[in-house]
Amino acid sequence: MDNSRLSRQFEFILEADREKSILRRTLKSDGETRENDAEHAWHMALMCILLSEYSNEEIDVLRTISMVLIHDIVEIDAGDTYAYDAQGALTQRDREEKAAARLYGILPPDQGEKLRALWEEFEEGKTPEAKFARTLDRVQPLMLNSATGGKTWAQNGIKLSQVLNRNKSTADGSAVLWDYSYNNFIKPNVEKGRIIDE
Amino acid sequence: MDNSRLSRQFEFILEADREKSILRRTLKSDGETRENDAEHAWHMALMCILLSEYSNEEIDVLRTISMVLIHDIVEIDAGDTYAYDAQGALTQRDREEKAAARLYGILPPDQGEKLRALWEEFEEGKTPEAKFARTLDRVQPLMLNSATGGKTWAQNGIKLSQVLNRNKSTADGSAVLWDYSYNNFIKPNVEKGRIIDE
Repeated sequence: MDNSRLSRQFEFILEADREKSILRRTLKSDGETRENDAEHAWHMALMCILLSEYSNEEIDVLRTISMVLIHDIVEIDAGDTYAYDAQGALTQRDREEKAAARLYGILPPDQGEKLRALWEEFEEGKTPEAKFARTLDRVQPLMLNSATGGKTWAQNGIKLSQVLNRNKSTADGSAVLWDYSYNNFIKPNVEKGRIIDE
Repeated sequence: MDNSRLSRQFEFILEADREKSILRRTLKSDGETRENDAEHAWHMALMCILLSEYSNEEIDVLRTISMVLIHDIVEIDAGDTYAYDAQGALTQRDREEKAAARLYGILPPDQGEKLRALWEEFEEGKTPEAKFARTLDRVQPLMLNSATGGKTWAQNGIKLSQVLNRNKSTADGSAVLWDYSYNNFIKPNVEKGRIIDE
């Protein structure tokens, strides 16, 4: 038994634990506490199991869930960049590339390369799996923001044009989920003035 | 498009959000904050992707990850029962059965029945997938307890016999992972007196 392989795997798994302290802007359904990256990834993975039937294209669910589970690992080093932070967005790619090299480098090379490729695939958003994973990544916070009375939108003075721009590819993974999200999570919050319709 | 199906799915997904506030006794690797059920499930799912090669028997990884992701959903209603709480254990099954009926009942029947069956399968621990999932459920907190200096063991005066009893089936899912865990997570903490060897 090659214990050095297993040691590297456990080293990565323990390092990944830090994802539980990377806070997002999204509030949990209690409307008080901020969600962290690990909770977000778990929620998306659960959604993937339940909602894969709505993918525009046929997807490999295991590949998609794997992608979802690791898509924010780089934020352990690079931090979370808020969806509407234009400044942060400028350096995001560079910070995340460095993080991917270090973090996936902890794993045995075969697994490190596989997971890094999966993350790159997610970032590029071209395959059916990546498109659907990215749709979940948009729909999950829309659902929570709506469930918590649109608090984070209102607090940050978010405009409808920003939400729509952020979601310009959400229908690419699932037209059904985008349609539902627009009508149930976005539109009511525009009508109540929590998202600014300028 | 049958929106009532999708509405039920989103209702369940939003209800599941509450798993993020069910605290476990395990400390995260920061050694300060307690882990919640959603973080624990995410961590196990990640472990499943990376460590399935060590399963004693061949497993369907997607089925196992699905099981892992939902295995604590019942705790939204039933609460977390600490591994060494003998009193709580007496009522645990009953509390969790009621929780499963309500929570999985929110979903469209086909999905609700599927997920509930998957949870029952996990609880019974007889299939290769359930055995491996249960092994991860034991190994993940052993890893964190060891990484945080055995604090929760020491604080609760836990004895080696209790840890071994708790882990009497851990090798059933993976002899390799049990062997590694015993030597790297348990034994050093017995030697340092954090687990009591009576």
